[in-house]
Amino acid sequence: MGIQVAVAGASGYAGGELLRLLAGHPEFDLVTATAHSKAGQRLDAVHPQLTGLDMTFVETVPDVLADADLVFLALPHGESAALAAQLPAGVRIVDLGADHRLTDSDAWTRYYGGPHAGAWTYGLPELPGQRERIAASTRVANTGCYAATITLALAPLIAAGVAQPADVVVVAASGTSGAGRAAKAHLLGSEVMGDLSPYKVGAHQHVPEIKQATGATGLSFTPVLAPMPRGILATVTALPAGNAADSTAGNVADSTAGNAADADPRAVLARAYADAPFVHLLPEGRWPHTAATLGGNSCHLQATVDVDSGRLIVVAALDNLGKGAAGQAVQNANLMFGLPETTGLSSWGVAP
Amino acid sequence: MGIQVAVAGASGYAGGELLRLLAGHPEFDLVTATAHSKAGQRLDAVHPQLTGLDMTFVETVPDVLADADLVFLALPHGESAALAAQLPAGVRIVDLGADHRLTDSDAWTRYYGGPHAGAWTYGLPELPGQRERIAASTRVANTGCYAATITLALAPLIAAGVAQPADVVVVAASGTSGAGRAAKAHLLGSEVMGDLSPYKVGAHQHVPEIKQATGATGLSFTPVLAPMPRGILATVTALPAGNAADSTAGNVADSTAGNAADADPRAVLARAYADAPFVHLLPEGRWPHTAATLGGNSCHLQATVDVDSGRLIVVAALDNLGKGAAGQAVQNANLMFGLPETTGLSSWGVAP
Amino acid sequence: MGIQVAVAGASGYAGGELLRLLAGHPEFDLVTATAHSKAGQRLDAVHPQLTGLDMTFVETVPDVLADADLVFLALPHGESAALAAQLPAGVRIVDLGADHRLTDSDAWTRYYGGPHAGAWTYGLPELPGQRERIAASTRVANTGCYAATITLALAPLIAAGVAQPADVVVVAASGTSGAGRAAKAHLLGSEVMGDLSPYKVGAHQHVPEIKQATGATGLSFTPVLAPMPRGILATVTALPAGNAADSTAGNVADSTAGNAADADPRAVLARAYADAPFVHLLPEGRWPHTAATLGGNSCHLQATVDVDSGRLIVVAALDNLGKGAAGQAVQNANLMFGLPETTGLSSWGVAP
Amino acid sequence: MGIQVAVAGASGYAGGELLRLLAGHPEFDLVTATAHSKAGQRLDAVHPQLTGLDMTFVETVPDVLADADLVFLALPHGESAALAAQLPAGVRIVDLGADHRLTDSDAWTRYYGGPHAGAWTYGLPELPGQRERIAASTRVANTGCYAATITLALAPLIAAGVAQPADVVVVAASGTSGAGRAAKAHLLGSEVMGDLSPYKVGAHQHVPEIKQATGATGLSFTPVLAPMPRGILATVTALPAGNAADSTAGNVADSTAGNAADADPRAVLARAYADAPFVHLLPEGRWPHTAATLGGNSCHLQATVDVDSGRLIVVAALDNLGKGAAGQAVQNANLMFGLPETTGLSSWGVAP
Repeated sequence: MGIQVAVAGASGYAGGELLRLLAGHPEFDLVTATAHSKAGQRLDAVHPQLTGLDMTFVETVPDVLADADLVFLALPHGESAALAAQLPAGVRIVDLGADHRLTDSDAWTRYYGGPHAGAWTYGLPELPGQRERIAASTRVANTGCYAATITLALAPLIAAGVAQPADVVVVAASGTSGAGRAAKAHLLGSEVMGDLSPYKVGAHQHVPEIKQATGATGLSFTPVLAPMPRGILATVTALPAGNAADSTAGNVADSTAGNAADADPRAVLARAYADAPFVHLLPEGRWPHTAATLGGNSCHLQATVDVDSGRLIVVAALDNLGKGAAGQAVQNANLMFGLPETTGLSSWGVAP
Repeated sequence: MGIQVAVAGASGYAGGELLRLLAGHPEFDLVTATAHSKAGQRLDAVHPQLTGLDMTFVETVPDVLADADLVFLALPHGESAALAAQLPAGVRIVDLGADHRLTDSDAWTRYYGGPHAGAWTYGLPELPGQRERIAASTRVANTGCYAATITLALAPLIAAGVAQPADVVVVAASGTSGAGRAAKAHLLGSEVMGDLSPYKVGAHQHVPEIKQATGATGLSFTPVLAPMPRGILATVTALPAGNAADSTAGNVADSTAGNAADADPRAVLARAYADAPFVHLLPEGRWPHTAATLGGNSCHLQATVDVDSGRLIVVAALDNLGKGAAGQAVQNANLMFGLPETTGLSSWGVAP
Repeated sequence: MGIQVAVAGASGYAGGELLRLLAGHPEFDLVTATAHSKAGQRLDAVHPQLTGLDMTFVETVPDVLADADLVFLALPHGESAALAAQLPAGVRIVDLGADHRLTDSDAWTRYYGGPHAGAWTYGLPELPGQRERIAASTRVANTGCYAATITLALAPLIAAGVAQPADVVVVAASGTSGAGRAAKAHLLGSEVMGDLSPYKVGAHQHVPEIKQATGATGLSFTPVLAPMPRGILATVTALPAGNAADSTAGNVADSTAGNAADADPRAVLARAYADAPFVHLLPEGRWPHTAATLGGNSCHLQATVDVDSGRLIVVAALDNLGKGAAGQAVQNANLMFGLPETTGLSSWGVAP
Repeated sequence: MGIQVAVAGASGYAGGELLRLLAGHPEFDLVTATAHSKAGQRLDAVHPQLTGLDMTFVETVPDVLADADLVFLALPHGESAALAAQLPAGVRIVDLGADHRLTDSDAWTRYYGGPHAGAWTYGLPELPGQRERIAASTRVANTGCYAATITLALAPLIAAGVAQPADVVVVAASGTSGAGRAAKAHLLGSEVMGDLSPYKVGAHQHVPEIKQATGATGLSFTPVLAPMPRGILATVTALPAGNAADSTAGNVADSTAGNAADADPRAVLARAYADAPFVHLLPEGRWPHTAATLGGNSCHLQATVDVDSGRLIVVAALDNLGKGAAGQAVQNANLMFGLPETTGLSSWGVAP
């Protein structure tokens, strides 16, 4: 008998992707899926892409989860902490929500409001030493989808001293599934098709998580809703270390000449992800694009130094429901159960 | 050592999907991928969704294919017959092109031109007795994507005497990947986004295949290009058997009352696909839609009797690159090698 | 001072398009726009494409409409009749809803429920004699968007005796704006992008209107939701007159040989729309597609005889919010005020 | 008789939009449209959205343009200078290409190659004093679509001393029509739908024009191809003046406290565009999005100060074929002929 798995809050988009991955996972046996308003409905009535999966949603209560070996929480922010507190210590939990990501309680209160439930092991296995920490944990907080994308692009460059942490500028566009499945007029297909729409400009609740995970100390983050169901493309720019802010294009070469090899962002990223099965630094000249990551668990990266400004530019692409949510959750769970990290996951995207 | 597999013409869209499926197949070992203008390039330079797959395209010549146990041909129509003729008899071949689908040489010449290469076993396992024929074959002609969709919807109804074969009307819309990867101005994103565009109206080259596979004797088939990369939705209507063509709405109930049970199209479809793992008749009230089949090997079906006209209406949805091409090719190959039909394939779609 | 115009229910998609057209109309002065939940908001807060239009929604009550010369009603089905009954007889009214379209009270009750408000002049100026009837009317019922598309394609062929009315089969796909602006989960961008989805298969409430307007006596109508904001593409097929339903492809030529010239559907359509500024029969070989009609008031048509089945196939494309709703409403209003039919309207689409 | 107008190179996307605008312009009479490979074809065969416009493309040679009062050049970069040199001095010319935009010949040679044709009056009427310069010119260089968007967002802030010119970071996404109409495989609908794809990262040929027009001295500009036909959304960030580059979030308030009123980016933009009919600073809380500008000649703007980084963030949206190309060209031409700037143009977008 395999590892018994339950998913709480499985009627949303991340939940649906998790069900899909679990339905094909060779070691995890999906035994329970819970929902709120959809309780009592078949899974494939709510997720028609799973037509033929013979299971019914039950109510989200602790009792139906307590016997599982592994529980995924795909609940609205603020609900997972309360539920997790009622589960036995022996149940391993991966929380796809934000409740346990932040180590800074003040930041939690400022951006989310209410009391802070405390931090769990941060679920991004590609950070240094994090695989081991996740493997040793029974509680893991999956990263946010924007945070995962930006952190994979930026954290190694700040850690290596190649990028300055002080003036990071990020513009990241996401497919609409990142905005959830609740019926809202501004998310209607008629509104989003053909449209690019920025939101929460100047003050996004994911800023503290991104700063915590990347090491950035100053961050301008502008998210944009893009006319596609899935995918995040993050354009991350940072000043190169040793490059004064008032530098102009003319003296970029000089200011970075001292340690050109070390400062090569591609070399730093290549080293950082040499053993990461799901993070791919593309060959020079090829840039990440979201469609190549759809449905898979990969993050694609590329980096360069801007000719005019001297800024480092790193672009990262991933599937917000895959490596940005459900895929990463399964990857974390694999580690927590001593399985190969790649079990039941694919690097390949579904394209075109 | 697994079964050695080669794909000829793997730089197009069906070829790319085939590579993706083979890269995850537990019994087939992808050893060779050929291309024409892309020979010498890495697979993931041409198919960035396969980033990390370490293999290079070679030229499409018989020598590189002859040692394989299994060859998939994903070549332009007219090229596969010539190549297949040069491969050893012992090599099992699945042809994704049209060259060997038609049994009627005249129809071939009329719609495609040139000499007819002769028919191979028709690769739609869900037709009665076809699984066994495919399993016994070394040469299989994969069905066309439109033909697969329409045949799964209609063939059982004509075979059961529930639908008249004489006046079938089909309108089917396909995503743009069905139109191929060659650079053509009318297929530019700027042209197809926001657009529905019919083509080859009144005379499509797939009509003979559809008639051959469904048993229809009179067929009006109108294909439409839809603004999405993948997916086919076919709306198939036929007159109910025993319903004279001049019937009006008022007498529909009467004319079909005699054998209402037999005439229920849902019952016929349910019986036809009771053991088919990839063809799903949806519960009453739910209609197929393409997004639910994206990336999987499923065909979703639903049927009803039109209140006003009394016509049978069957709607079928599938992924034109999945069950309509590459997925079906792998399904056929599984059968040819005595493997479970579902090996390396998934029923689940990637949605949203 | 120009003609004083009010729009009731202007916060939806058809209402927004109407406001856009009225804002550029040289004779109509938009003086009042009403809404329900949006009352009190600026027009451009609700319709950001009208940014700069300095006007505020007021509540939808008879008083604010009674002084207008012309009132457009863009209300949910069932609400316009009640409101119209409270407006002075001298106010000219164009109703974009369904309340006054049907002449058959039984059909109204069967498909919509409730008492029937009675028929107004049917607002499709391109029907024979209809321009004059509209010009003489103070109450006009705008056609539904599907009905407009299908009627323009089919009515002349049935009227000319070229198409049989008994067994018409229509599949028509619409952009999502046709489904309205209310927040519904199945209309979210995440759901509709990449998706084709049939709905109300076998029993659509527009069937009686389409039959009334086209003269069809038997109609199979299947609507499909397409992944684009605007546009309708209707594929309309009918048996040629004189062609028995049990005919097969072989005898089509014979059965129609007697009066080939009369039976040419293109010739019939060319005659029917010779003087219609907004209905364009395309040159042979070019087929209508929706993007070419976006934002304009045109309907594009093409017709052929199917090689295999002998059926007549007519394809029509228009913008469901333009010629299918708001554009047509303005065209009707122009006629009602003795203005040139084309005043303030454009034949040109916005493409790509 | 109106002003006689010719369009050279009218078969592309900007050319098509220009034809649409000219077909509805009350003062400009479109008399000639030229093309290269499409010469001899009807305009509506190439631009089906103009079905009914009865005119034929002629070859692009000076003779057919020399008698016009006004010539628009919508040619590939590098071709307009040669053609313009052969036209009489009295013909007014608006060049939609890049040939005459740059004042710096070195920058031209570095980014475009070949000899520089010299600068014409820069065609962005909203820059200070530029309306008058354009009105007095017979030769005007229309701005690039990215440059127009970014300049409208940024130039007033740098000019007012509110934004530092040294470290500007821009990420701008464009619909696919900005990439032109030539058949290229990476622009196929199958590739671009569902995809966000950065290009020319770190070295884009529009950087010199953007710096020239905005006053920026250091610019990181990353363009992204977005899955929609039209629209540009630019996210422009700059350090506030007086805010040293090494500032961190903590001292932002202090560093800008001295002249908070002056530093308000919204106030600066409101002043700059108080009299501009097509540039709309949105009310606080509403952010620009591209769909609201589709088909119109408007640019929508919004600005804020980032809570975390203290950077100024300005977002601008426009239609790359409208205010970014053809609409702006007509606006410039209106000024050159002493017409009201708004003649034949609309502020309203076509949405949804």
